[in-house]
Amino acid sequence: MTKPVQRRRIVRVEVGDSVTSRPRHDSLAAEEPLEIRVGGSALAVTMRTPGHDFELAAGFLVSEGVLTAREQLGSLRYCAGADGTDANTYNVLDAHVGGPGALVASSRHRHVYTSSSCGVCGLASIDNVTTASTFDVAADDARVDATVLAGLPDRLRDHQDVFERTGGLHAAGLFTADGDVLCVREDVGRHNAVDKVVGWALQEDRLPLSGTVLQVSGRASFELVQKAAMAGIPVLAAVSAPSSLAVDLADRLGLTLVGFSRGRSFNVYTGAQRVVA
Amino acid sequence: MTKPVQRRRIVRVEVGDSVTSRPRHDSLAAEEPLEIRVGGSALAVTMRTPGHDFELAAGFLVSEGVLTAREQLGSLRYCAGADGTDANTYNVLDAHVGGPGALVASSRHRHVYTSSSCGVCGLASIDNVTTASTFDVAADDARVDATVLAGLPDRLRDHQDVFERTGGLHAAGLFTADGDVLCVREDVGRHNAVDKVVGWALQEDRLPLSGTVLQVSGRASFELVQKAAMAGIPVLAAVSAPSSLAVDLADRLGLTLVGFSRGRSFNVYTGAQRVVA
Repeated sequence: MTKPVQRRRIVRVEVGDSVTSRPRHDSLAAEEPLEIRVGGSALAVTMRTPGHDFELAAGFLVSEGVLTAREQLGSLRYCAGADGTDANTYNVLDAHVGGPGALVASSRHRHVYTSSSCGVCGLASIDNVTTASTFDVAADDARVDATVLAGLPDRLRDHQDVFERTGGLHAAGLFTADGDVLCVREDVGRHNAVDKVVGWALQEDRLPLSGTVLQVSGRASFELVQKAAMAGIPVLAAVSAPSSLAVDLADRLGLTLVGFSRGRSFNVYTGAQRVVA
Repeated sequence: MTKPVQRRRIVRVEVGDSVTSRPRHDSLAAEEPLEIRVGGSALAVTMRTPGHDFELAAGFLVSEGVLTAREQLGSLRYCAGADGTDANTYNVLDAHVGGPGALVASSRHRHVYTSSSCGVCGLASIDNVTTASTFDVAADDARVDATVLAGLPDRLRDHQDVFERTGGLHAAGLFTADGDVLCVREDVGRHNAVDKVVGWALQEDRLPLSGTVLQVSGRASFELVQKAAMAGIPVLAAVSAPSSLAVDLADRLGLTLVGFSRGRSFNVYTGAQRVVA
C-alpha cells in the first residue's frame, strides 16, 4: 500500500542578487486513484491520498445517498487483480450494501462512473494519459530564466479580476518563456481555469503551446500536469505543493514541474534543465 | 446568463475582548454546473464559474484528447430546453467535432459522463440534492459560540499530520458545538477529506451528525455543503471563501455556512441564528 507521504529529490532555487540552486529532498502528499465499487460494479474513481480508504468509500456512499446507517454496510474490502495481474494495488474497494441503498447504487452505476480529466476524477492509471498525449512535451527545448519564473505568481495576481473581490477563485495564466502574459483565466475549479486557458489557445490555433509556462494559483495535482501535457505546455508552475502523482507524471512526460513558487524562491521537481540562471 | 460575481447579505463577526456582529454585503464567486456535450451526447458535467464557457468546453475537449487543432471544432453553442422548459440556462454547451476526435468522444461517452458528488462533478441541479437528503438539517437546533467557532481553524491545524511535512493537503475536522475534536482527516482532495470524516462517523454509527461543526481548510464549494447535509451536519465552516452555489444550497437546506474563518473573525453566510456570542 502506498504511504500518504512520499520523498523525492528536488532542486531548490533561491532568487536574489544572484540565483542559487541546491539539490535537496522534499516530502510530497501522495495521490493515487481509488475506484469505489458497490456489489462488484464501479461507482466512481477519485484521486485521493491513500489512508483511511474504508472511511473514504463509506463517506462517499453517504454523500451519494447509498448509506445512511452502519448496519446497511455489509463489508468493504480491497479487490486484487484490478490491474490485470494477481497483485493487490489497494486502489480498488468493493462495498457490499444492504437495504434500499443497494437499489440507489444500482440506479447510479450508469451515471456516476467517472474516468475523465475533469477535476479530481483522474484517469485510472498514468498509462492512460501517456498514451493519449498527441504532443511531445519532452522534446520541447524551452529555457526559462529563474528570475522570470519567480516573478510569475505576482504577474498572475496582477491580471486577476474576480479574485480581488471574492478571494474565492483559482487562476491559471499562460506566459511566454520571457514572462509575457498570453492569457489569464479564473474559476472556482482550478482545472476549469486551466481548461479555459487551453481552450483560448485552441481557438487562437496556438496548439501545441511549445515554449510556454503555465502558472497556477494553487497546488499542482495530477490532472493539471495531464492538462498541460495534452496542450503541449512544457513548464507548469504552482504557488503551492505538487502531489506525488503530479511529480511522477511530469517526470514520465518530460515536463518541467515547479512548486512553492513564492516570489523569491521555488522548488523544481522535474525537468530542471529548462530552468536557467 | 449568470454573472461571475454574485452579491449576498452576510453577517460579519469579530471576536476580541467582546464579540461584535454586523450585517454587510459580500461578493461571491459564482458556481454553476456546465454540461459539455459532443454531437448532442453528454460528455461531462463540471461545476464552474460562468464566463469563458466556450473556452472551458474547448479546453476540456483538448484535455480529453478529442481536439488538437482549431479546425476540428465545427461549432459550439448553448442548448435551450435543457431544464425541461424552453429557457436557455446557459449551462449546457454542445460541440460539433470533426475528424478523429469525434470517434474519441463517442468512445468516451460511456465512461466520462459524471453526475456524482465526487469533487468538482456536482449534481446537475440543486433540486437533485435537496430531494436526496435523508436527514433534516434545518431542524437542528444546535448553537455554537462565536469564540469557539473562531478557534476551530487553529484546532484543525493542530491535528493535521501530513500537512506539516508537505504543505499539500486539505483537512476536514469534525467538532462538537463546544469545540471538542471528534475526527480530523487529510487528503489532496478537499471532498475526500470530508468523505473520510463522514465515513468515520458512519462506521461509529453516529449519523446523523446533529449538533456538530465541520471545519475545512480551504474554500467551501457546492459539494461540501451537499456532503455536510447528507451526513446531517448543521454547521460548515471554511477558512476561505464559499461559492455562490454553496451559499444558495446552504440557505435552501437550512445549514449554517461560515467562511473566511481566520482566528479573530469570520463571515456567516446563512443560518446565523446558530452562532451566539
